[in-house]
This record gives sequence, structure tokens and C-alpha cells, in this order.
Amino acid sequence: MKEPVFPEGILSLNRSSDVSLAEQIYRGFREAVRKGLLSSGTRLPSTRRLATMLGVGRNTVNTAYDLLQAEGIVSIRTGAVPRIMEGLPLEGANFEKVKLVEGPGLSTRGMAMSCNLRGDGWAFRHGALQPGAPALGCFPYEDWARCMRRAARLERSPDLQYQNYTGLPSLKRQLSLHLAAERGVRAEPDQILITSSMQASLSLLSLVLADRGDVAWLEDPGYLGAKTAFHTAGMEIRPLAVDEHGANAAAMDVSDHSPKLIYVTPSHQYPLGVRMPLTRRLALLDTAGTSGATILEDDYDSEFLFSGRPVAALYGLADEGRVIYLGTFSKSLMPGLRIAYCVVPSKLIDPLTQFMRNMGCAANVQAQAALAQFMDGGSYQKHLKQIRQIYEERGALLVETLRQRLGNRVQVDIPTGNVQVTMVLRELIDDVALAKQMQEHGFAVSPLSNCYLGENSKSGLIIGFADATPVQIAQGVETLSNLLKEAGHETASP
Amino acid sequence: MKEPVFPEGILSLNRSSDVSLAEQIYRGFREAVRKGLLSSGTRLPSTRRLATMLGVGRNTVNTAYDLLQAEGIVSIRTGAVPRIMEGLPLEGANFEKVKLVEGPGLSTRGMAMSCNLRGDGWAFRHGALQPGAPALGCFPYEDWARCMRRAARLERSPDLQYQNYTGLPSLKRQLSLHLAAERGVRAEPDQILITSSMQASLSLLSLVLADRGDVAWLEDPGYLGAKTAFHTAGMEIRPLAVDEHGANAAAMDVSDHSPKLIYVTPSHQYPLGVRMPLTRRLALLDTAGTSGATILEDDYDSEFLFSGRPVAALYGLADEGRVIYLGTFSKSLMPGLRIAYCVVPSKLIDPLTQFMRNMGCAANVQAQAALAQFMDGGSYQKHLKQIRQIYEERGALLVETLRQRLGNRVQVDIPTGNVQVTMVLRELIDDVALAKQMQEHGFAVSPLSNCYLGENSKSGLIIGFADATPVQIAQGVETLSNLLKEAGHETASP
Repeated sequence: MKEPVFPEGILSLNRSSDVSLAEQIYRGFREAVRKGLLSSGTRLPSTRRLATMLGVGRNTVNTAYDLLQAEGIVSIRTGAVPRIMEGLPLEGANFEKVKLVEGPGLSTRGMAMSCNLRGDGWAFRHGALQPGAPALGCFPYEDWARCMRRAARLERSPDLQYQNYTGLPSLKRQLSLHLAAERGVRAEPDQILITSSMQASLSLLSLVLADRGDVAWLEDPGYLGAKTAFHTAGMEIRPLAVDEHGANAAAMDVSDHSPKLIYVTPSHQYPLGVRMPLTRRLALLDTAGTSGATILEDDYDSEFLFSGRPVAALYGLADEGRVIYLGTFSKSLMPGLRIAYCVVPSKLIDPLTQFMRNMGCAANVQAQAALAQFMDGGSYQKHLKQIRQIYEERGALLVETLRQRLGNRVQVDIPTGNVQVTMVLRELIDDVALAKQMQEHGFAVSPLSNCYLGENSKSGLIIGFADATPVQIAQGVETLSNLLKEAGHETASP
Repeated sequence: MKEPVFPEGILSLNRSSDVSLAEQIYRGFREAVRKGLLSSGTRLPSTRRLATMLGVGRNTVNTAYDLLQAEGIVSIRTGAVPRIMEGLPLEGANFEKVKLVEGPGLSTRGMAMSCNLRGDGWAFRHGALQPGAPALGCFPYEDWARCMRRAARLERSPDLQYQNYTGLPSLKRQLSLHLAAERGVRAEPDQILITSSMQASLSLLSLVLADRGDVAWLEDPGYLGAKTAFHTAGMEIRPLAVDEHGANAAAMDVSDHSPKLIYVTPSHQYPLGVRMPLTRRLALLDTAGTSGATILEDDYDSEFLFSGRPVAALYGLADEGRVIYLGTFSKSLMPGLRIAYCVVPSKLIDPLTQFMRNMGCAANVQAQAALAQFMDGGSYQKHLKQIRQIYEERGALLVETLRQRLGNRVQVDIPTGNVQVTMVLRELIDDVALAKQMQEHGFAVSPLSNCYLGENSKSGLIIGFADATPVQIAQGVETLSNLLKEAGHETASP
């Protein structure tokens, strides 16, 4: 394999500039192509190699390459070195001008905001065994229909007109009671903002709390939705190492670049499932306090831990304003409701309300009213209790089946909560290819390696069990076993 | 009145910089305060005066002042000169540092995104006679409940899980049929993206189609929701003059700064109500084609023109990709549904779908399914026919009452469509104060002057009639008449 061609002098980084390093790299390549210094088909260094050459983090290079790919300047394919895209207008062509005359397209920001950071190993449509998916069969359709009928009595209510940009007061009241009782989160109803999904909470908060180039710490491995939100907001992402006690903020170097946002899943680390002990939690709060960062606490699954009570939320341990608590009804009820929420500091209520009015992304009012009813009448608690038991059985069945069929090729623990489980492969297998093959067979499992930000990614699959029938579990594991056998042979050959 | 103090040398604008002029002004003031060159309480020039001093548009100064106000650096009150805020940390204090240690706050971008550009004359909560509000009393609750019951049969559908980030296919199909039949908008279902409001369509499209500093043309006077979206996306706003034939693109100077987005309401200009003739429409398309701009066609009310058929949408006249067509169900059904839509060029479907997945701002699935049912069964057409008649009666009653009570103090036409009417005051009255007084009496009318971007704003009120009872109309006009009498006396005194 030839060494990638890489002309000297293309990239001169200015470390004291306001412009982020990723942006500088991106602009450098773009200019080089525009000036004809790099021509179509030119092989570029791998992210790892370029990071070493420039003395920057690999994420910085990844961000730059994502932008270049989004803009159609660089072609990036798994297993191949990046190249300058074929067929580019070169030798002094002005991209903006070309795009302008061709007709409307996305802006540079728009291209970055429409990157697929999940990679193509993540299913775009729903399928069996999909991570994150709740059991639709357990959804309390009758109770819900009753609540919707009551909600329809909201006739002539001003709540149906233009107001409540951050959600219906009755739902906020119910959430306030629920969060205090179940999660140790004490918040006035006004502090609770209703959004249409966890992804919406993350992307909107990133836009309003951070500037382009600000630093976000993200658990490594971590949630791709958070990575997407930070990237969408133009933030620089730094990996926050996760070990058997969860994210380890104390191991981070804050002197280099203070974080603006720190995303964590303390109750049940995503995707590894570990729980963060109190000392770690306090250390994390301390780091955030010292560096002035806001912690985004994603408490995505603590409502259905199978046994025992979950650890109280980080939110309850912190000084007012340090932690924003994030929750969703996508997993406890269903994604189609498009209802999630965040708990914000009092001083942010007014500006965030105006922000949400400006963005216009509010949730359906009748569904909010029905959900408030559903919670008030005790149906939500009843539902949680029911799904906890069913999910526990399904999780155990999935893991036992995986262990039986795959033996010591995989490492996977009986889940203590959640709607999905992370299975780690002991061999080095291309899990993106594996996930895609599973998807071709109708199983929308996700590759683990994509959740890693740094070098030492593990291979594995994230597999949903909440909505899985025993037949789906058996067939899915059977399919997986067959695919692994094939992959094993391939791996065995030199 | 003393001349405002304004130290020389604070602002040196670089017209060839990538940084927008508004941003340069904002940074200049911010730096000056940080360095102690401007101290608390210092009087600043009015926007008009500063615009003249610097040789820039008044909007540029407005944008800069909005940012400074949002950041708590400058205090702006109606009728008073802007001043540097009291109690600022001065003499070399570093704002970022202070904010960081104090605890999390909004970012600079976040402050700009949470500005209230509607001004405080616009009601934040619903009230009688509110512009834009449909008649809740006419909402077909029974038909709707029937559709919602059917939608609840979507049990176990993958549509309730994570997919359809741009909306439910069944609703897109119905909209595709409806738009072709009613509006001459021929679009494949895939080209239709469902959002949660017109505001969401505008703010999301501005983020993804424009970069910070790009230029947006906005009708003058024009829709404050569009102004908000452009400002939120960091765009520079230029006034597009409106006369008796609507927006006049031919009068604009494109050589200076090409527009990226052009926002228009051709069928029924907001807020003046005029209709754009075909020659103007063609000229507008020509300008957009030459300058490479995307036109955002807000067709907010053409579904209930009271008589005759509305002019076909601009979308149908244009080459593929030049016009994005925007509609909403907020006015034809109700805002609480949180369902609106846009029709985008085919080549933008994939990136916009990924963008909307990244932003996570999708609409409730059951409501979308119910709406598809509602349209498919003919209930929507029946409903539109019914409200057209009721709205026509209410609009005529409001205008006749206004004319009877206020005579030639006001100029107001019998509406030919829409859910609101714009009443122009012949005298120069502070309509923001007037609107606020009306709001104190429970009438959520809006001031007209805020809709103007340039110098020659007219005073007036925008008054909703669709949801108004005859009693509300009588009481509202009575209240207005009394307030105008008081205002008239004040105006009469020197």
C-alpha cells in the first residue's frame, strides 16, 4: 500500500485562534482543493495518522473529515484511506459560486448539521431487536385511549392556541411530582421543559448553551445521539474515559480546554451498562464546578431498573444550575408520542422559553394532556411496574440464548434494567459489517464500535430485547451465530 | 436632551471581513465595555443615528443591539436612548470567565437565539382577538376524536418506533393530493416534510440552508416569525419593500449582497393583505434565479380565502428547487396539533431527513395518523368550507364595527380571507403601548409597527377575528375606542 500523498504546507494550524482546530483543518483542505493543490482521487492520511502529524486529537480530525465528507470534498469509506472526491471542479473553482448558480443547496453549517454520525451500520428504519425500542405490545392502548378521550375535552381551551411553548403546565406538574418521588429530582414545574425527543433536548440545549468551537465531553464509548447533537452545534468533542465505575472525570485534563457541556449517563452507562458510584459522581460535580461546565445527565432508563431502586439522580446532588436532567417517554411508553423533557436551572427558564418559542419545536398538546392524565391516574406507575417484569424476562432470555449459542466468543451480562443489552465480541470482527448483515435479515441491531470516540474501540453489538418475542430472539441469535461463523473463517484467514 | 456620549475609535468596521457587520459592531461594543472604554450608564446612539454614523443599514445596528441586550450589556427601552447596562463588571473583567465561574448560562449564540424579536407589544399568552388564532369553537371535535380512535389502532406499528423523522407517509400522501388539487403544488409525498409549526419550518430551514452572516430578504412590513428565524440562524436581514402589489424584488439591489433566502407571502401578504400579481411573481423568481437564492413561500392562509380561488402558489411557477413551499394546520385546524409542513426540492430530501433526525423535532405520530384520516375522509375539505363562511362573517363584523366606532381615524378593509385583519391608524400613535393596554384588558392584539424593518413604519393593530364572538368584537372595539380617545388627547398636547 502506497503512503498517502500529503503535500506539505497545506495545513498550518494556529492554536491561539478563535477558529477551532477542526475548522482550521477543514478550511485548509478546502482551500487546497480550491487552489488545485489537492486533486481528485488524492489519497489523504487516515484520521489517526493526520492527528499524529498535526499533534491534535483524533476527534478533531474526525470532525474536520465529517465536514469535508458532508460537503462532498472528501470520500470516506470503511476500510479505505480517505480520498479527495472524484469529479470536483478544481483549479481555482469557487465552491460557493458554483453552488449558488446551480440552485439552492445546504449551507456549510447545514451540511455539518445533516451529517450521519451514527455511520451506516445503524439502522435508519425500525426492525426487530432494535436498541432503544420499547415493547409496543405492552403499551396500554386502552388506558391511553381513555386519556386521549379526556384530553379531547380540552375544547376551546387557550392551551390549544399559541402558548405553552415549553409544554403543558398539567404535564409539568405531574412530572415534577414523579421526578421528586422516583428520582430525587426536586424541581418546580416551571423548570421542566417538554421537548419532542431526547435528541431534541440534546440538540436544542447544545445550540443554546454552547458556541461553535466550545468543548463537549462525551463518555467513551458513549451515546451517538449526544455526539450528533454536539457536532450539529459545532462543538469540539473530547472523549471522557469510561471504566467499570462509569465516566472518570478526574482523569481528564481541564487545563487544556475547559468543557462547556459534559454528557453522562450515571445511572446506567450507555452503552456499557455500568453504574457510577457516589465518589465518582461527586468528583464529576467537582470538575464541572471548577471548569464552569453544565452537566447533561441523561437518565434514559432508570425508570425501569428491574430490581431495587436506582441510585438517586446526579441532579439531586448538585448545586442549583450545575446539572440539566434529561428524560424521555420514548422508552417507558413509546417513541411515537414524541414527548421528552429536561429539567433546567431557574435562571434559564425565561431565556429557554423564548428560545423554544423562536424554534417552534413544541409537542402535540392533546398528547401532553393525555400523558398528564395517564400519570395522574396512576396508570404510568402501573405500566412501569408491568414492563419492568416483562423486560427483565426478555433480557434474561436474550442473554441466555446468546451465551448458549455463542459461548465464549462473546461477553454479555444479564441486564439489570434497560431495553437493550451490549454484547462484546472477544474477537476483532468488523461489527459494522456484521450489523449491516443482521439488518439485511431484518434485525436492526447496532454496532458497538461506532460508540467509541478514541482508538481502543471494542467490537460488539447493541441488541434490543424489550419488544422481542421469544421467536425473534431465537431467530436473531441463530442468524447472528451463522454470520459469526462465516466472519470467524474470514478472520482466521491471513 | 444631551447628545449621547460615544467615544471615537471604538468601532472600526472591516467591510471585506467574513465577520458580518452586525457581529463586528456587537464585538466592538463588547470589547469596549470589557476594556472599560464604555462604563455603566453610558448613553449610546439610537439605532438610526448609529446606522448613519457607520454608514450601515439600520437593521444591522438593530441586530447588534439585540445581541448586546440579550447578553445584558446594553439596556434598551422604548422611548429612551440605549445605555450600557448598570452594574456591569468593568475595567478588564472577562465576561466569559465571569459567566463560567458563576455557573452555566447561555452561550453567545444562545443569547442571540433566545432574543424576543417580536418586542414586548406582542402577547406571550393567548387572549381574545389574537392574530393567527383559529376558531376553536368550529374545530370538528367529534370527527377528530373518531380519527384519533382510528389512529390508536396503529398498535404495534413500526411507525410508533424510531423512524419517519420527517413525518408519517400516510399524511404526506394526503398532503400531496391536497396541495396538487388546491394549490397547484405538484410534489411527491417524499418531498413533504412534517414539522411541528410554521416557526419550526422557518427556524430549521434557516439553520440548514444558510450560514451565519448570509443575507435574508424579508418583506417590509413582514412576518416576525420569519424575522425571528433568520435572526436565530445568525442571518443578516434586508427589507424587501412591499407596495400595493406585494413584495417588489425588482427594486432590490442584488449586486451588494446576494440573498440566500427570500421570504414572501405572495397569496396574501402578511400583514398588509395584498396579493402579488403574476408579473411580480415572475420577476421575483427571476431575481431568485439570478442570485441563487431559495424562496420560502409562506402560504399561511390561502386555504380559506372567502371567495374565489386563490392564485396558484409561486411554487408551481418555479423551476424545481427554487421555491420551498410552507404551510401549517395551525390556522386551518388549531395550533395545539403542532403540525405544519414544507415542500422541499428532491435533492434536499436525504440531507434534510438526516438533519431532522439529528434535530429530533418530529411531530406526534398518532396526531399525524389522525390528520391523514381526517383528510382522506373528506372531513378537512368540509371543515375548510365551513370555516371560510364563518370567518368571512366574523371578519366583516369586526371591520364594520371598527369603522363605525373609529370612523376615519383608522383605515381597514373588509377581509377577503385570513383569520386576522390589519387596521392602520391614520395618526402617529405608539401602537406598542396601545397593544399592551389592550392586552391588559384581555385582548391579545398586536402592534403593526413592529412588523416594519425600515424607517417608515405605520402605526396600527393586527386583530384576530376567527375565534371572536360578537360580544368580544363589540367589547374589544369599545375598549380600543376609549384607549384611542385618551391617546388622541396625549398626541394633541405638544
